[in-house]
Amino acid sequence: MKASYYVSQGKFDIRDVNAVEPKADEVMLKMAYCGICGTDMHIFHGKMDKRVNPPQVIGHEASAVVEKVGSGVTRFAPGDRVVVRPLDWCSDCPACEAGHSHICMNLKFMGIDSIGAFQEYWTVKERTLYKVPANLSLKEAALIEPVAVACHDVRTSGLKKGDFALVMGGGPIGLLIAMVAKAAGARVMVSEINQYRLDFAKGCGFDTVNPKEEDIVAKVNAATNGAGADVLFEVTASVPAAEIMTELVRTKGCIVAVGIYSQPVPVNLHKFFWRELRLFGARLYEAEDFDAALAVAASGSMPLEKIITGVYDLDDIEQAFSANTGSATALKTLIKCGNIEE
Amino acid sequence: MKASYYVSQGKFDIRDVNAVEPKADEVMLKMAYCGICGTDMHIFHGKMDKRVNPPQVIGHEASAVVEKVGSGVTRFAPGDRVVVRPLDWCSDCPACEAGHSHICMNLKFMGIDSIGAFQEYWTVKERTLYKVPANLSLKEAALIEPVAVACHDVRTSGLKKGDFALVMGGGPIGLLIAMVAKAAGARVMVSEINQYRLDFAKGCGFDTVNPKEEDIVAKVNAATNGAGADVLFEVTASVPAAEIMTELVRTKGCIVAVGIYSQPVPVNLHKFFWRELRLFGARLYEAEDFDAALAVAASGSMPLEKIITGVYDLDDIEQAFSANTGSATALKTLIKCGNIEE
Repeated sequence: MKASYYVSQGKFDIRDVNAVEPKADEVMLKMAYCGICGTDMHIFHGKMDKRVNPPQVIGHEASAVVEKVGSGVTRFAPGDRVVVRPLDWCSDCPACEAGHSHICMNLKFMGIDSIGAFQEYWTVKERTLYKVPANLSLKEAALIEPVAVACHDVRTSGLKKGDFALVMGGGPIGLLIAMVAKAAGARVMVSEINQYRLDFAKGCGFDTVNPKEEDIVAKVNAATNGAGADVLFEVTASVPAAEIMTELVRTKGCIVAVGIYSQPVPVNLHKFFWRELRLFGARLYEAEDFDAALAVAASGSMPLEKIITGVYDLDDIEQAFSANTGSATALKTLIKCGNIEE
Repeated sequence: MKASYYVSQGKFDIRDVNAVEPKADEVMLKMAYCGICGTDMHIFHGKMDKRVNPPQVIGHEASAVVEKVGSGVTRFAPGDRVVVRPLDWCSDCPACEAGHSHICMNLKFMGIDSIGAFQEYWTVKERTLYKVPANLSLKEAALIEPVAVACHDVRTSGLKKGDFALVMGGGPIGLLIAMVAKAAGARVMVSEINQYRLDFAKGCGFDTVNPKEEDIVAKVNAATNGAGADVLFEVTASVPAAEIMTELVRTKGCIVAVGIYSQPVPVNLHKFFWRELRLFGARLYEAEDFDAALAVAASGSMPLEKIITGVYDLDDIEQAFSANTGSATALKTLIKCGNIEE
């Protein structure tokens, strides 16, 4: 079978390898689609070689069809359409023992710390799999992993129906958070400085603000009778966002830290104290977030297909990553990993 | 009657003024004791003149006996021993409407934004008063306001019995938080760099750590089987504490921002993301925190009297503030406002 190996900065090799036979608790998947994540782009740019240890098959936003199951597998059978929650936890660190295996202290993230999805067949543990509802295409299903990120972020925020949510950052994750928040009954504003993404967010029906051109504090206050946002999702990992975020939420309001900052940044802790603000870090999905993602995607309330701005064959993976690099217009690019037409 | 007016940096005037007759919903108090708070020290050092608008009677950590009640007062009668929750909220800003009147957006903090307690008689709204249990002295009762701060902080943290709590900062508020957390069943470690305060915390039965001389991360990990603190109270408002705090709590652990930072400081938002940490700002007490403070103080489980390191007559208030300035050994200094001997 074909497998794409990230080998070094800017470089993939397509290799012919044997599919891995499933052990008792494993399932061999015939891969359909796998999305390119921001982290995959970092890997492609050579910034995570120490962690990834190339050559390595990466990719973790996958949809697939079950090809073969191990002897102990009970919940899946060949032909099942599935998505993968790409987490491999240790079960006995303090985090796992406290019930937080999704952020296990020894977590192996599949597709980064171990073999991933950009290949024709992928063999994974049964516990990582979730069935795809019949009315979701496998293309849409490849978005379930980032939708689950969004569901986790929204659940973490405690957002309630009627709340005003400000999403800072209109990339794929920001847009999916906005969609999930809207589906949960929130009024949503998206803050973004890239005009294409601003227009895109507008096209999805969201209020928008460009904080480089407008007074974002005034705009949020005007939309909330001076109270401020109930919930703010910080998805930009930018210094200006960290600086302004504490001005944008109501007393006791909630900020969810989603963006991946590369170093400590100035934060107004006095404002946290003064208005009793709350900050919640949100990293990865728990099982219930995958369930929620599948449910909200299947409900038809999210225009998922609009997010998909490109589909490339596995043979063209290097070209796909290159086209994504620095693109102002790419949102979610999928790799078609095999020959499943759907 | 005598009233002490803060007039300018380093200066109090004792003046002879008339006591204020209570309106229908007000109570005239004969003052017993009033503690000096860190904020009072800032005022004394001339750093809050714009807000305080001197000459002004300050002071807000008060115990008293009811002298006279207004015509509409139903819950108090002359002779009642009381403490004051020194908050005057507007009832109709977004914060009040959301049920957060303790951090009202137009909050007047009595003793800072309006007349305070360093005087023989103080007239306040009935809604600010709480009865003092018989087994608490009025000297101890003057500590109820800071104990209520501690109760609010501990409640905000969600601390549970058996949790490991790290208190960064061993001043009066840090010590009271440590005592309240211990009374709630937590294991408590106090971090402090002042040797007197370290010894004092040790004398109160707390584990201690001096982060300038010891590896605080290693010490906290050793005490928690490598998991990190369940709850961390940041009471120092120092840059090093803001830097290290994210290394000291467990996955999903909680940091309570109690210290009053004067400017934004670098915070490791990546660590918030990675370990899904939580940060809660905690400023002032709600009614239930005053109830809790009176209950825990009356239970006898807190060595409150140990915190009182000095008592001065009202006539000597300037001397009391001067002695407190830069003192490494002063914890809580009380002003005896009148002639109530108890």
